[in-house]
Amino acid sequence: MKALFLLIISIGFLVSPLSAQQALFEESQIISPEIHSDNTVTFSLNAPDALSVSIAGGWLANGESVEMTKGENGIWAYTTESLSPELYSYSFTVDGVKTIDPNQAHVQRDVANISNYFIIDGDEYADLYVVDQVPHGTVSYPWYNSPTVNKVRRIAVYTPPGYESSDKNYPVLYLMHGIGGDEIAWLGTGRAAQILDNLIAEGKAEPMIVVMPNGNVAQEASPGNGSEGLTVPSFNLPNTMDGKFEESFKDIMDFVENTYRVKTDKANRAIAGLSMGGYHTCYISRYHQDTFDYMGLFSAALNNKPKDYSESPAYQNLDENLKKQMDDGYKLYWIAVGRDDFQILRDGIDELKTKMDNLGMEYEYLETDGGHTWNNWRNYLSIFAQRLFK
Amino acid sequence: MKALFLLIISIGFLVSPLSAQQALFEESQIISPEIHSDNTVTFSLNAPDALSVSIAGGWLANGESVEMTKGENGIWAYTTESLSPELYSYSFTVDGVKTIDPNQAHVQRDVANISNYFIIDGDEYADLYVVDQVPHGTVSYPWYNSPTVNKVRRIAVYTPPGYESSDKNYPVLYLMHGIGGDEIAWLGTGRAAQILDNLIAEGKAEPMIVVMPNGNVAQEASPGNGSEGLTVPSFNLPNTMDGKFEESFKDIMDFVENTYRVKTDKANRAIAGLSMGGYHTCYISRYHQDTFDYMGLFSAALNNKPKDYSESPAYQNLDENLKKQMDDGYKLYWIAVGRDDFQILRDGIDELKTKMDNLGMEYEYLETDGGHTWNNWRNYLSIFAQRLFK
Repeated sequence: MKALFLLIISIGFLVSPLSAQQALFEESQIISPEIHSDNTVTFSLNAPDALSVSIAGGWLANGESVEMTKGENGIWAYTTESLSPELYSYSFTVDGVKTIDPNQAHVQRDVANISNYFIIDGDEYADLYVVDQVPHGTVSYPWYNSPTVNKVRRIAVYTPPGYESSDKNYPVLYLMHGIGGDEIAWLGTGRAAQILDNLIAEGKAEPMIVVMPNGNVAQEASPGNGSEGLTVPSFNLPNTMDGKFEESFKDIMDFVENTYRVKTDKANRAIAGLSMGGYHTCYISRYHQDTFDYMGLFSAALNNKPKDYSESPAYQNLDENLKKQMDDGYKLYWIAVGRDDFQILRDGIDELKTKMDNLGMEYEYLETDGGHTWNNWRNYLSIFAQRLFK
Repeated sequence: MKALFLLIISIGFLVSPLSAQQALFEESQIISPEIHSDNTVTFSLNAPDALSVSIAGGWLANGESVEMTKGENGIWAYTTESLSPELYSYSFTVDGVKTIDPNQAHVQRDVANISNYFIIDGDEYADLYVVDQVPHGTVSYPWYNSPTVNKVRRIAVYTPPGYESSDKNYPVLYLMHGIGGDEIAWLGTGRAAQILDNLIAEGKAEPMIVVMPNGNVAQEASPGNGSEGLTVPSFNLPNTMDGKFEESFKDIMDFVENTYRVKTDKANRAIAGLSMGGYHTCYISRYHQDTFDYMGLFSAALNNKPKDYSESPAYQNLDENLKKQMDDGYKLYWIAVGRDDFQILRDGIDELKTKMDNLGMEYEYLETDGGHTWNNWRNYLSIFAQRLFK
């Protein structure tokens, strides 16, 4: 055992001096973040020459940061209060420059922001975000042809545990991201694969395929994965809520139903999305009539109005189509939003609810704590997934 | 169009103040890196309060960094000489703390080091690293059962363009990472999916499946993706070169040959790897006799010696097994290494060559510029892949 250790160390040291790729790597003794048994968390950063170091993270109020304290050894440190179970992102700011934690190798991207993250488990939601020793589904990134927008586009697909070794057909949840997101958003910060693995293992969700499209039809794929190159992710993409994605949705369904072993009846199709994805869910399920038995609107950005794009076929006869959606029938129209979400967004949701009430159209409405955050969207997925295909 | 723009801007602004997830996001006007038409590159960082900012990157000698210059606007800048086509990583150091570029959203991980990267195309190798408008293969992350090490483990699989829509069987390349790497290394810094997409599109490589295992049998998956949690990636893992991975390789082949449409004869199996993965290639192809027609040793770490683990079945009768590998026959035994690689590693490769020469065992040997770097390993994959299954 000792011989192995020495061999490996010698390779490690040998590799360092010559490799350009590995020049930037420095093995460190600092453990950061250190999660203590009482769920307080200590962050540490070796920065003897820095004048000020602060930390921002998901447990603080938005826009807030706290100063870290410099020790005599040049290591700045900060310990939180005891934190509730949740996935938390964080970043340091060193002399005015936002930076990731150089002692932690795990990062996530939200729109254009790269931050570190850690998980405190211990409640029914956060326990779902952890990779457990349960059967795992497969995450794939195939490409599909979308003649509607004249592009070959990337999509993310979760097939449930056992898919490869069975010949069963599975129901499908189409799950959509928000503005500034893309086909990898739900798999990164959204923890969709872990949530589904764990819910299925506990028998709380049916084994299902989860299809995560890229709702920005101006893109082939998430930034860096398409031929557009290493562009900076942005809120300001064209054609995100103008009907083009809704129109092209049949290309996605064609690909999925021709490529995977899926059940192709309405009772085995669900559609959901967060923010802009909730808007997409609302209008896709209304345009592609009699197609989905389950709709999930997570903090839906219904403050945006299709009337600004009245030329799109997806936005014709909106009121009639809503009535027809009701008449065709469905099993669940599920709407959730946080009490602290933007008022304009909450107003948009209230407007839909009023319209549905006036029609006598059924829906379930869940109002939760919190605002327009991934914390809520992960929770909403966890709840909604348990309601499907039963 | 203007209405859309205003709507999106309003969502962007609305989202910022309340969302914990999006608190860290700041849209910026700084473009960094900026690649000019003469292949000089300008990096910029807004850091009015910093005392010193330097940059390190793949175009500099190893361990070297250069000071950036502070402008009156508080933006530090640095422009390189004209760079050769290549994929380059880089990072800033702000008052002693290594940081990524906050104006760039694209990062890669090499062992525990997160850095930004950019690509300068324009030669036969670097052009392969770019996502082009060519047919794309699918990258998947399935899990396989490995009874030999009593774990369910994650693996990365590239299926070539057309796999989903055809019923053809494909040849397989098993492609392995180095020490400190894992199943995602070849897909990140290694650009394996882009290299294969582009070589296949140009008709230079046969459509093939590329299987990228995790060679660290102590891990279920790369750090963060297994039940070990958000561990820091390390050179110092147990059981990496003690025969356990070689023994368990049949579990991988069983999974692949039972799950994918693959050709299962020797003529349609290749195996290759970099550094530790070259060591694995050498001993797997010798232990699993008469199984592979193509071997690729990229900067193989043959300075490590199986004799330290003489109890492993994979390391019995090594000389006899090499002789038998020769007698069984194969199409290509390909060995490549950089002139500036570690002498101890080059000595290990020379020792194998001498042994093969003494046996009269055929191989091809390629010595290139450069050292123990991803630049070389990407090139070696590009060359080796063109030699397979023809």
